[in-house]
Amino acid sequence: MRPFKRLMSRASALEIISENTRPVERVERVPITDAAGRVLAEETVAEAHVPPFDRSSMDGYAVRAEDTFGAGSTSPKKLKLIGVQHAGEHYEGEVGNGVCVQVATGSPVPKGSDAVVMVEYTKTDGVNVEIQKPVYPGSNISLEGEDIKKGEKVISPGEVLTPGKLGVLAALNRETVQVYERPQVVVFSTGTEVRPLGAELSPGQIYDINSYTVSAVISANGCIPIVKGIVRDDEEDLKMAIEEASRHDMGVFSGGSSVGEKDLFVDIIEGLGEMLFHGVQVKPGKPTLFGLVSGTPIFGMPGYPTSCLSNSYIFLRPALRRLAGLPQLEPRVVTARMGSRVVSSSGREQFLTVRLKGGVAHTVFKKSGAITSMANADGYVILPVDLDVIDEGEEVQVTLLE
Amino acid sequence: MRPFKRLMSRASALEIISENTRPVERVERVPITDAAGRVLAEETVAEAHVPPFDRSSMDGYAVRAEDTFGAGSTSPKKLKLIGVQHAGEHYEGEVGNGVCVQVATGSPVPKGSDAVVMVEYTKTDGVNVEIQKPVYPGSNISLEGEDIKKGEKVISPGEVLTPGKLGVLAALNRETVQVYERPQVVVFSTGTEVRPLGAELSPGQIYDINSYTVSAVISANGCIPIVKGIVRDDEEDLKMAIEEASRHDMGVFSGGSSVGEKDLFVDIIEGLGEMLFHGVQVKPGKPTLFGLVSGTPIFGMPGYPTSCLSNSYIFLRPALRRLAGLPQLEPRVVTARMGSRVVSSSGREQFLTVRLKGGVAHTVFKKSGAITSMANADGYVILPVDLDVIDEGEEVQVTLLE
Repeated sequence: MRPFKRLMSRASALEIISENTRPVERVERVPITDAAGRVLAEETVAEAHVPPFDRSSMDGYAVRAEDTFGAGSTSPKKLKLIGVQHAGEHYEGEVGNGVCVQVATGSPVPKGSDAVVMVEYTKTDGVNVEIQKPVYPGSNISLEGEDIKKGEKVISPGEVLTPGKLGVLAALNRETVQVYERPQVVVFSTGTEVRPLGAELSPGQIYDINSYTVSAVISANGCIPIVKGIVRDDEEDLKMAIEEASRHDMGVFSGGSSVGEKDLFVDIIEGLGEMLFHGVQVKPGKPTLFGLVSGTPIFGMPGYPTSCLSNSYIFLRPALRRLAGLPQLEPRVVTARMGSRVVSSSGREQFLTVRLKGGVAHTVFKKSGAITSMANADGYVILPVDLDVIDEGEEVQVTLLE
Repeated sequence: MRPFKRLMSRASALEIISENTRPVERVERVPITDAAGRVLAEETVAEAHVPPFDRSSMDGYAVRAEDTFGAGSTSPKKLKLIGVQHAGEHYEGEVGNGVCVQVATGSPVPKGSDAVVMVEYTKTDGVNVEIQKPVYPGSNISLEGEDIKKGEKVISPGEVLTPGKLGVLAALNRETVQVYERPQVVVFSTGTEVRPLGAELSPGQIYDINSYTVSAVISANGCIPIVKGIVRDDEEDLKMAIEEASRHDMGVFSGGSSVGEKDLFVDIIEGLGEMLFHGVQVKPGKPTLFGLVSGTPIFGMPGYPTSCLSNSYIFLRPALRRLAGLPQLEPRVVTARMGSRVVSSSGREQFLTVRLKGGVAHTVFKKSGAITSMANADGYVILPVDLDVIDEGEEVQVTLLE
């Protein structure tokens, strides 16, 4: 059995992960109805003005502004109503002095008019319209190209397609859009004691948990999990599995990275590629490793469900988002009071999972092996390496799990 | 043309929406691999202990704790190594006094032993093991049922399935899980000037934007958009569309809720059901309405892309999440300095979209009709009804769009 050599600090580990994970450059074309949250992979240049014509931005009457000067509620100006310009239609007439045309929001501005008076400031008997407030030229009119000008670059590669940006694509009549492919991340669980769901357990065996938690984190961060199931802690099998993973965009293995005699992981990674760190200064989750095989990042996560999932949030998620070209998540942090005294003496940064109730953080951390340590948590309190005790009632910062 | 009567405040409108939107109660069974983010619809009671046996939580040696008392790095206790207990296997031997068995993390604790000494505090020549630190009974052992006890209720209806909770389901050998169905939300765009993507535009016509932005918001909040396309501003067509929507869980119409003469929406809703509000005290997005038809909530959103999308975040999203049984989102707010002087005189609460750059909020709001007002925004500053001016450099709270 080989103990860990030097534990990597969280910051250094994250730096190494970032330096060795490159965004996927493959692209695909998808309908914009399937493109929400995807990362744009083409320059979007407008082929036409948006809006494509001068239009009324209010319901009301198109006028010559000069005809309204001096109008007031007690001294209205009277204009003759000569027609209606419906939205979506083309009105043939022209607005001269002394007349007006009824317009709806979004309808083109009739020829000759240079302003729209809002319906709220008018009164009509169907023949004439009383204008009760003056407008200046351009009032309540959206000019052609005011939103987007023809030739304008509106969205650029690397931007994430929000509902608003999808709206821009629709305005430009783009039915499909080129985005970066979702990275494919291979997931293996290792361990002789780990069995697939549905199997009968023999004494000493447990169900595979990590394939499910890790894939959920992969999907939630813009990547596609390719779940391969359980691989035996056997040199040949593990080597084949790592090689298979290296033909995709990333590989995540759980278990098999502790210091037990069956832990061949380090040797195989070193044989096939390069080990970049083995052992991180966080608790839970010390036995986490990261390496490259044929340029593909390979994570070895701890076998313990809570250690594995905790480090999936801390280390794997940034890697997934980088691979997918997504911006890193800003952690959401809330202030709370610690519900009980907590003692830490690990010499590692400790991620203490807590449940929040009425501003109080109650620890739900049982053991690294207990999946309920994560399942019942709203977030975690990070205890620095040099902090040993948090007293009951002490103020803490809780990073929400999301 | 009928002007708005009384504008509803945002708070009152949200209350009415909440009171009249009920979570969908239909359930379905899905594989746990597809269940991330779904809302649990069954009580989850553990049929077995997790872990199902006493196991070692460390790599090391299973011992009788009493044999280690007094051990130190300069005064180790020597125990005879009688075998190896591999993870996932069953070791037949028994640990008596003076002997030990090698164990790996996760392997069952051999009969007779009551503690595990971590490998880090041992030295071995393959025949004997030197113990350099004492352990007490129970050290480094996870007891059967320590994570989850047989019969324990672990996750309850209404909880959202996070990666951690999916891990709990896997630990309990649940391959499928009962969740609430995703609500079906019908989406219509109205307006004679609105054309589907791919069509040639005649003068005065524009492309449908709202179907795309609204559906993206629907999908992002746990519901399924059923996009029906464009319906004419015609009494019979609109009536049929609203009736169709009322046979689903919710209907969202955009356009047709302004005060123009073609705006039949209010009359039809009042004829078929009940109008709950028409006109909200927010800018952009005043012409927003909400009613019930056959008990189904129907939204009439403004036709203007920015008004429609802004109110999809403000009013539609809470309704969608309630329908889906999801918790409401806590808005993420950051402090910034206003990049330029802003004047508001709308008499409504104003949602001013801004882009953040180096802690400064730059307004990107053009007009309610400009989709880029939303597409280019990182968030919005809310100007209260009674606030007229924000000076350049003044501190503002920016609610992030996400």
